[in-house]
Amino acid sequence: MSSTAITNIATLVTNDPSLGDTSPLGQVRDAAVVIDGDRIVWTGESSKAPATDNRVDAGGRAVLPGFVDSHSHLVFAGDRTEEFNARMSGRRYSAGGIRTTVAATRAATDGELEANLTRFLAEALRQGTTTFETKSGYGLTVQDEARALRVAAAHTDEVTYLGAHIVAPEYAEDPAGYVALVTGEMLDACAPHARWIDVFCEKGAFDGDQARAILTAGKAKGLHPRVHANQLSYGPGVQLAVELDAASADHCTHLTDADVDALAQGSTVATLLPGAEFSTRAEWPDARRLLDAGVTVALSTDCNPGSSFTSSVPFCVALAVRDMGMTPDEAVWSATAGGAAALRRTDIGRLTPGARADLTLLDAPSHVHLAYRPGVPLVSGVWRSGVRVV
Amino acid sequence: MSSTAITNIATLVTNDPSLGDTSPLGQVRDAAVVIDGDRIVWTGESSKAPATDNRVDAGGRAVLPGFVDSHSHLVFAGDRTEEFNARMSGRRYSAGGIRTTVAATRAATDGELEANLTRFLAEALRQGTTTFETKSGYGLTVQDEARALRVAAAHTDEVTYLGAHIVAPEYAEDPAGYVALVTGEMLDACAPHARWIDVFCEKGAFDGDQARAILTAGKAKGLHPRVHANQLSYGPGVQLAVELDAASADHCTHLTDADVDALAQGSTVATLLPGAEFSTRAEWPDARRLLDAGVTVALSTDCNPGSSFTSSVPFCVALAVRDMGMTPDEAVWSATAGGAAALRRTDIGRLTPGARADLTLLDAPSHVHLAYRPGVPLVSGVWRSGVRVV
Ligand SMILES: [Zn+2]
Ligand SMILES: [Zn+2]
Repeated sequence: MSSTAITNIATLVTNDPSLGDTSPLGQVRDAAVVIDGDRIVWTGESSKAPATDNRVDAGGRAVLPGFVDSHSHLVFAGDRTEEFNARMSGRRYSAGGIRTTVAATRAATDGELEANLTRFLAEALRQGTTTFETKSGYGLTVQDEARALRVAAAHTDEVTYLGAHIVAPEYAEDPAGYVALVTGEMLDACAPHARWIDVFCEKGAFDGDQARAILTAGKAKGLHPRVHANQLSYGPGVQLAVELDAASADHCTHLTDADVDALAQGSTVATLLPGAEFSTRAEWPDARRLLDAGVTVALSTDCNPGSSFTSSVPFCVALAVRDMGMTPDEAVWSATAGGAAALRRTDIGRLTPGARADLTLLDAPSHVHLAYRPGVPLVSGVWRSGVRVV
Repeated sequence: MSSTAITNIATLVTNDPSLGDTSPLGQVRDAAVVIDGDRIVWTGESSKAPATDNRVDAGGRAVLPGFVDSHSHLVFAGDRTEEFNARMSGRRYSAGGIRTTVAATRAATDGELEANLTRFLAEALRQGTTTFETKSGYGLTVQDEARALRVAAAHTDEVTYLGAHIVAPEYAEDPAGYVALVTGEMLDACAPHARWIDVFCEKGAFDGDQARAILTAGKAKGLHPRVHANQLSYGPGVQLAVELDAASADHCTHLTDADVDALAQGSTVATLLPGAEFSTRAEWPDARRLLDAGVTVALSTDCNPGSSFTSSVPFCVALAVRDMGMTPDEAVWSATAGGAAALRRTDIGRLTPGARADLTLLDAPSHVHLAYRPGVPLVSGVWRSGVRVV
């Protein structure tokens, strides 16, 4: 392996407070990063960079850790353009919602699912996302859920079994039977392909008792929990997530003080997904309230064809700053180190020696521009595991 | 000149209601467009396309007219990152506002201004903008305003003299003296380089009487008016714009019923600039109210380093749909045909025989995806005057 120095970085975000300006972002000005193989081996001021085999001039631009998108739903087929168009145009539409995507996904070939997934991953990579989690949840049969996870596992280590996305249409009259399937045969088929188990704990999906049963069964099979919690209404999801030591409670849009307290005292990250509120014209989650209470906050896309069809972490950063009370620094931390925390990873989300060499180069002098220049595709370079891919 | 057919277009937006689905967008499914030289020579169903020298397969994606960004401020130097960061972080900041940019712009060389402008134009082009208007307004001396317009005129026909952006710092105690300069010596120096004259009609900038004097003086020199109107508060700007037959009243955030009536009865376009409301956390303009009253609405970026540092028309489309009550169809029309109307142009903003061959190819099957997939850089091809540039 040869070593490469990226030099002449105007603003380097390390996410290590012991470096640079001692803020959570650990910013170093006029910085350099040295990559060897798939790892960062040195971080500091440009003038002190060690000799390397290769050199890349960042041209006075900003470098930050690759985005860690800890919540997406990318194994699907079809799209829901007409449903979206009708919703935004105030027209009635007999929307099948998730069921529309379930039907299309079941009907798709493995190759079609794989092609769709890889297209969205390439799109996300071009926007600076170097780690992504993705979920099953549009199969809802033993075979279709296991297939989705196999397809996902070929592209990421962060694979989540979400058989409990909604009750499968075939079990509409027998939700208990579906929970038995999700915690039984389906779990057996899916556990070998996944790291995580997730449940949509919400009115109309799965209640607290069902969610507890599903997550507990998954834990017994070696899957670690994460929870779709408190998106559309108040509910038991967040406190259940903390109780079961879930890595993350995702959405967190409707929170009581007790929910916030539970998050502050536990080790569960609150993952906020502003793309969903954007595309459904819903109220924003209150990131400020969570941050002020000491909760660890992550930002992710929730990329899916129904409620949040964006793959853009920079877009989510801009929304978080505009509408959720986050500072630009906090939003960038949450989209990198926060995402890593939501996946319980310490090798990503930071640019310090030993970390994975996942970096994003912006066509801008600082990370603040992700919020300052909303909508503009600012990502001009991406390294993943030490290899420049954009 | 050789002719080129772009075929296999899933959704073609022509903006000609006599074509396709007879809606304002004039959508044609499974369509083709033929370009000869710098013009469109044929539009219709793919199967009926005439023989051409060259053929480009759109791969089942969408083609629409290039965006017409009828309001930007791109002749400037410096940026205001720290001011933005402080505003969004709730920190006090002794912001110079526009004056900060005026000082940096005056201090810049011609080459620096030109390099900055061309960088932003290239960025906008990559996002599908094929026509842009841009303004002076950060010089505020005879020489610096004329210089800004010369720099702009080298890159676009749509150049606007905005000496009346704010009262120049040197005239802080003598606003009448500044109006005399703007309508006298500065106008004489600037008029040869511009098509339009604009004024920021707002409390703290120029009042109705001053704005009328400035716009009337410009008209006498052959410049056509457009007005920054009713952005921060109610005021006389919109009705003055209609009275003087301005091509556009821009911002239109605070409107009385009389303002809406005036716009509906006149031929002045209401140009909405959601990037400004986004980046200043201000209330959204009510596009729905204007559309329902029969007003012609345009959407533009207002790209400038202070209040709206986005060059992304797709981002503005997504905001207009989410927050301003526009349907996806209406927003796309406003960002193309609407922008053309705001510049009183009939050769752009539509894809029909005789129109300029300015086209945008999306990596999506329909224009709805500009709103459905917010923040995602979907523009995958751009033709300007018949030449593929992206
Ligand atoms: Zn989700
Ligand atoms: Zn403006």
